[in-house]
Amino acid sequence: MIHATSSYIINIMITSLSNSKIKYIRKLKDKRFRQETGHFYIEGIRIFGEAIQNMAGIQTIIYSPELLESEFCLDLINGFDNQERVMQVSKDVFKSISKKDHPQGIGAVITQSWQDLDQVDHQHMGIVLALDSVQDPGNLGTILRTSDAINVRSIVLLDNSTDPYNLSSIRASMGAVFNHSLIRCKIDEFEEWVRINNINIIGTSDRAETEYYGYDYPENMVLLMGSEKQGLQERHFSLCRDVVKIPMEGRSDSLNLAVATSLVLYQIYNQRRCKR
Amino acid sequence: MIHATSSYIINIMITSLSNSKIKYIRKLKDKRFRQETGHFYIEGIRIFGEAIQNMAGIQTIIYSPELLESEFCLDLINGFDNQERVMQVSKDVFKSISKKDHPQGIGAVITQSWQDLDQVDHQHMGIVLALDSVQDPGNLGTILRTSDAINVRSIVLLDNSTDPYNLSSIRASMGAVFNHSLIRCKIDEFEEWVRINNINIIGTSDRAETEYYGYDYPENMVLLMGSEKQGLQERHFSLCRDVVKIPMEGRSDSLNLAVATSLVLYQIYNQRRCKR
Repeated sequence: MIHATSSYIINIMITSLSNSKIKYIRKLKDKRFRQETGHFYIEGIRIFGEAIQNMAGIQTIIYSPELLESEFCLDLINGFDNQERVMQVSKDVFKSISKKDHPQGIGAVITQSWQDLDQVDHQHMGIVLALDSVQDPGNLGTILRTSDAINVRSIVLLDNSTDPYNLSSIRASMGAVFNHSLIRCKIDEFEEWVRINNINIIGTSDRAETEYYGYDYPENMVLLMGSEKQGLQERHFSLCRDVVKIPMEGRSDSLNLAVATSLVLYQIYNQRRCKR
Repeated sequence: MIHATSSYIINIMITSLSNSKIKYIRKLKDKRFRQETGHFYIEGIRIFGEAIQNMAGIQTIIYSPELLESEFCLDLINGFDNQERVMQVSKDVFKSISKKDHPQGIGAVITQSWQDLDQVDHQHMGIVLALDSVQDPGNLGTILRTSDAINVRSIVLLDNSTDPYNLSSIRASMGAVFNHSLIRCKIDEFEEWVRINNINIIGTSDRAETEYYGYDYPENMVLLMGSEKQGLQERHFSLCRDVVKIPMEGRSDSLNLAVATSLVLYQIYNQRRCKR
């Protein structure tokens, strides 16, 4: 085990469980507090590495020299520009923050990154993904991971969607949450943006006639997916230029949302690659 | 609220938390106990409905008249052939079994259904799916759900795969777990079966040259997927007639396992539909 007593790290170690900074981090598990502060907490070697490499807006690095064995992480900490933002904590303090049974001893508080719909260059946007009221953080994270793999970068979260900065979502995204332009808005605002800019919306629903596999997707488009429980709502359906369906034969009348979204996203991506 | 005091149901209500049958059900949360007994426990209106409609081997129906409000379920209980297998329990007893915060008051103990590799008609098998050491129950359940949607019925679970009769897996499968022929075997046995019967194995790996999208899949084949952590192991790779890859452009070097499996399964399925 490597003890990070390196000369670069000169901060005093926090050992009190009731230190105000520690309390702040613990409170970031609460969605409302994340929204109020615009911060979120991540932990683990892999996700921390992704955050640093994607130059996410890191507020504080928290690590426990007793727990952290990864040289990769220790190098990242030593190379971090703002050493005053590095916080050493005792093993017990780290465990009081962590959600894991065997924490790796590395975490960070990061500033959430949100964009506005107006920042989307709608004439050259390629594929944008819009999710209506996605409920499961694991599904959202998995969808971000797939989107990252095919370079879909703008994700619109409509209405009551779950928080992408929830730990389960971040974990399922495998760090892809740092690579996206996340946009949060109400359906009214989205509808107006669609109407004014004449946006091509392609929806997915089992009520559609056209199959997703044979459909010719437009160059610039928003793929609109309904929620796990409701599917594509009437109002959302009516916004679509076309709606496609994924054929199903078994007893199931639906697929997992992350699977369905990934199937259509990859179909659009494959079609584009074949045309090139 | 409907109290099921119907004349069909004449069983005495169990109110003791330490009743031996109740203890048995509680122990079914433990994987080892499920394996020893060959039983598993399900709960909730939707999954219960799927179990009855799929004629799963129901050992015992457990319900709490105080909690169960679904007429659909009460009808299913009343129509159940073996009324001596219906067990009424108090609200507190049901809550002591349930994993949910707000249980719906309906559950069942069911006999696990397993097949042997030899029962697969390898000359007319169509698509069989083999998963090596899948770890996450949610992923396994989601894969069963997708397989069900495209009528892939035989699923081979190699080596240390997670238990499909785990509650999380059953829930993610949305009941599709009842529609499958599940086969559990060691890689040695699988290898021998492949060799003797000259089975076409198609693997998926990021080390492959061929892309999954353009590949011409054989009529009878096993799609072989590696685990979340390891991907396709060397030994499994060498069993394959061909290995395909899913192209990726982003920072991610992999997709969620349920997503990757679903992408390839649907590609095979779409190709077959286009050929018909």
